[in-house]
Amino acid sequence: MIFYLKVFKTVKSRVLFVYTFVVYMSSVKRAFRVKLLDVNYDRPLIIISESDAHEQGISPGSIVLVTIGDKFHPANVMTSSTMVNPGECLLSKDVASELKISSGDLVGVKVLGLPQSFSVLKKRISGEKLSERELYSLIRDVVSGVYGEAEIAAFLLSQLYNPLSDEELSYLIKAMVETGVIVKFEETVHDIHSVGGVPGNSKVALISVPIVASAGLLIPKTSSRAITSPAGTADTMEVLARVDLDVGEIVEIARKVKGLLIWGGKLYMAPADDIFVNIERKLAIDPVQQMVASILSKKLAMSVERLIIDIPIGRGAKVTSMIEAEKLASIFLRQAGLLGISIKVALTYGGQPIGTTIGPALEAWEALTTLIERKGSKSLIDKAILLAGLLLELSGKTPPGIGEEAAREIFLSGRAYEKFKQIIEAQGGNPEIKPSDIPIGKYTYTVKSQLEGAVTHIDNTAITLIARACGAPQDKGAGVKLHVKVGYRVNKEDPLLTLYSNSESRLDTAISLLRENPPIIVEGMLLKTLP
Amino acid sequence: MIFYLKVFKTVKSRVLFVYTFVVYMSSVKRAFRVKLLDVNYDRPLIIISESDAHEQGISPGSIVLVTIGDKFHPANVMTSSTMVNPGECLLSKDVASELKISSGDLVGVKVLGLPQSFSVLKKRISGEKLSERELYSLIRDVVSGVYGEAEIAAFLLSQLYNPLSDEELSYLIKAMVETGVIVKFEETVHDIHSVGGVPGNSKVALISVPIVASAGLLIPKTSSRAITSPAGTADTMEVLARVDLDVGEIVEIARKVKGLLIWGGKLYMAPADDIFVNIERKLAIDPVQQMVASILSKKLAMSVERLIIDIPIGRGAKVTSMIEAEKLASIFLRQAGLLGISIKVALTYGGQPIGTTIGPALEAWEALTTLIERKGSKSLIDKAILLAGLLLELSGKTPPGIGEEAAREIFLSGRAYEKFKQIIEAQGGNPEIKPSDIPIGKYTYTVKSQLEGAVTHIDNTAITLIARACGAPQDKGAGVKLHVKVGYRVNKEDPLLTLYSNSESRLDTAISLLRENPPIIVEGMLLKTLP
Repeated sequence: MIFYLKVFKTVKSRVLFVYTFVVYMSSVKRAFRVKLLDVNYDRPLIIISESDAHEQGISPGSIVLVTIGDKFHPANVMTSSTMVNPGECLLSKDVASELKISSGDLVGVKVLGLPQSFSVLKKRISGEKLSERELYSLIRDVVSGVYGEAEIAAFLLSQLYNPLSDEELSYLIKAMVETGVIVKFEETVHDIHSVGGVPGNSKVALISVPIVASAGLLIPKTSSRAITSPAGTADTMEVLARVDLDVGEIVEIARKVKGLLIWGGKLYMAPADDIFVNIERKLAIDPVQQMVASILSKKLAMSVERLIIDIPIGRGAKVTSMIEAEKLASIFLRQAGLLGISIKVALTYGGQPIGTTIGPALEAWEALTTLIERKGSKSLIDKAILLAGLLLELSGKTPPGIGEEAAREIFLSGRAYEKFKQIIEAQGGNPEIKPSDIPIGKYTYTVKSQLEGAVTHIDNTAITLIARACGAPQDKGAGVKLHVKVGYRVNKEDPLLTLYSNSESRLDTAISLLRENPPIIVEGMLLKTLP
Repeated sequence: MIFYLKVFKTVKSRVLFVYTFVVYMSSVKRAFRVKLLDVNYDRPLIIISESDAHEQGISPGSIVLVTIGDKFHPANVMTSSTMVNPGECLLSKDVASELKISSGDLVGVKVLGLPQSFSVLKKRISGEKLSERELYSLIRDVVSGVYGEAEIAAFLLSQLYNPLSDEELSYLIKAMVETGVIVKFEETVHDIHSVGGVPGNSKVALISVPIVASAGLLIPKTSSRAITSPAGTADTMEVLARVDLDVGEIVEIARKVKGLLIWGGKLYMAPADDIFVNIERKLAIDPVQQMVASILSKKLAMSVERLIIDIPIGRGAKVTSMIEAEKLASIFLRQAGLLGISIKVALTYGGQPIGTTIGPALEAWEALTTLIERKGSKSLIDKAILLAGLLLELSGKTPPGIGEEAAREIFLSGRAYEKFKQIIEAQGGNPEIKPSDIPIGKYTYTVKSQLEGAVTHIDNTAITLIARACGAPQDKGAGVKLHVKVGYRVNKEDPLLTLYSNSESRLDTAISLLRENPPIIVEGMLLKTLP
């Protein structure tokens, strides 16, 4: 039997929620009385009695659909001979809340056959081209939860060996957008997004977004929390304000303030992306097309029409060579063309950290200080102004060639800081917060130069590793402060960097890492003696 | 911290159990009081309190090691705020029994870092050659349970795109063998194994194994239960005797009777294979090298030194063309050479079912009848004698060219039946069982020919589908009996086949399938009218 379910929901006529399920289900019917199961797990669960499982031919570890009325949700099956009686089931909270089920309700349990799109997955694995409709059906089934990790991994792995064509990639991105929440705004939506990989980069948006919003452009920036870095923009902004806004709040603030800096995680925008990222992380793979799909799907779900993409290049960054960066940029450009996004890609210097701080609270402190004092680290200010300026030009706010100048004027005039205060307030923070109000890790350790010379290298990878060892991003006060940048001259005993942590033992771990991964190299330095 | 654990166990000095674990573990230590969790799931579980999980930085869905003394076992983490108190854990029965833990015991819980072999998996994904040591470390970690489905899928998928070299495949097979139980015998071990795919094939071994054992050769045949077919040799033999013997029993019977027909499933021989097969099934992929690895690893774990491989070729079989079969055969030959197995590969006709029955009880009935009456279906008798004869020659029992004759003599003399009775008795069955004692499905349906003509095709795929729809292999009495084979002449109303089932509704489903998938084609037959 095939079930079609389509839900259209409009919130204040600006939010569109489209979600379609098509799955094969057995016609077996049997009512189970629900009890709630208070466990947290990374997948939805149902526990039924061994005898019921045997009778219905359901084996532990398989996926079934839990149904109530015309709603349903997949769940992984466990069986037990003592925890539930025949005719009862234990449902994990996520399934229950998704289906609005309470203890005592009756639900159905249906055995899932092969997902309808399984043949599409097989085609992809064998390298055959997929149509728009096929990719949609595959992504819809991914989002509906009927695939396990093995199938998701197979889809991602296939991309490493058989890249998607341009058309297929655009179908994939569209499907990822259309199987989640799409937030619509009355005005044209702008955004700036960095592919990341450079420590200290999370704070750039705290300066560029207010500049763009000050110019009157709508820029509701969503970002992720750190996955492998010491801080994502969402982590850093969260030091100053709430970032977990709902769609209603986003639309409201967008109209009033024009700028937002929020976390995209719980908005159910392009939810397939979260599923893919989870498996990419497990396999430590990052297929380049999937990276583009990830970014563009999240942007399209926010209805972004004009977009600046920042690709930092440098040792220890995600992209390490100009050739690689140009290849990535060309995928962005082609996809933006196919998807109707007006885009500009900036290849920026990423050979050392941006600004002088790494870690959520430290970076929030640096961004706020920079906005208030209208001066600070050149790499931070110039980068924020450069990206904002490009967007001003792309939007037509300023003629080509003078975007950067206009952005700098907004920054230097203090209007960017005023706008940032409005954003903080709109997102529920204290707009009058001073940098000194921001709590920083209470345990510190400062590394000093052992000789006189010039700083020739600051190692992105080592800095990331050490900042994370200090506890960033979970420990918001943890991280690294640089006292020097590449090219600085130092004397013996000059401080090079300071570590911060709220845990003494984490600080110790980080200190021991310093020896194995010297993060700052001063010319003439002895790196190691052997044996 | 790295832990090495090595267990050598000798049972009666003939059984060797070698199992090595090397895993990175955090040094976090904390004792948890065990309560037992009565659930069945497809992976081991531990439930700890949310507060303990938070304190130790353990997230739901991650894998930890449960430790007691110097033993440990991986388990997937769930958390709960009500089901367990801080300081307690709920352990699923599989973990508890593996570690011999009882309720009230104290265990440790250690966070797993990346498995040591993760870099090896990455190398495989990117197509780099792996050394023997690297493949061993990867398989060891697969067996230890520290990898999830995504990682296993990635390893298997990589083989579709970047086949292993001959050397790598032999290392893989060795590693699969060495990470499980190896059963050693005092004599040279022989075996016959079919790659399968032809319905009715499961009973061939019930005739060929007794022939070989009658000739004085040791042939402790392990086989699998059906995965996608209506009956595996283990399912069919189980109609007559126990097949789930332990290693001690196997060694004992081997010495006394020379022949065994058992299930290899619970012996922990080449356990990586079971993990791979599970994921291959989910993805409906069957990488050819992995198929060879699967078969040879199980054989090497039983110390097989002389092996006949049967590759049936035909429409609806696993291998459909001679070219494909020769390619597969050449992989077997090369690997056998590298692994020191004396081998002969038989390419056999598999264009229609073997014998006249399909399904465990029906096939056990046919094999027993054939052995007792020393006559029966030519396809069954000739195939069993052919394979047994090849093994007699390979072993040197008979000179080349007369193995088949010798095998036929053993069959016709009744010695094969006598040996089969000994095997049944040794495996705990009733040696005097008569074919009429075997219970067959009580609901039946016979399809009759609608015209006069010759049978031109019997469809393997349709027969398999219909026999499984009848309930085989779980319903041992379910299946199909053919009244004709290809080439038979039939009159109108002559019976073509009979379906058997112990469930009326399953029989109905199977009957409806008959129309969509006509399993027997009589020349001149109208297949369909449209519309």
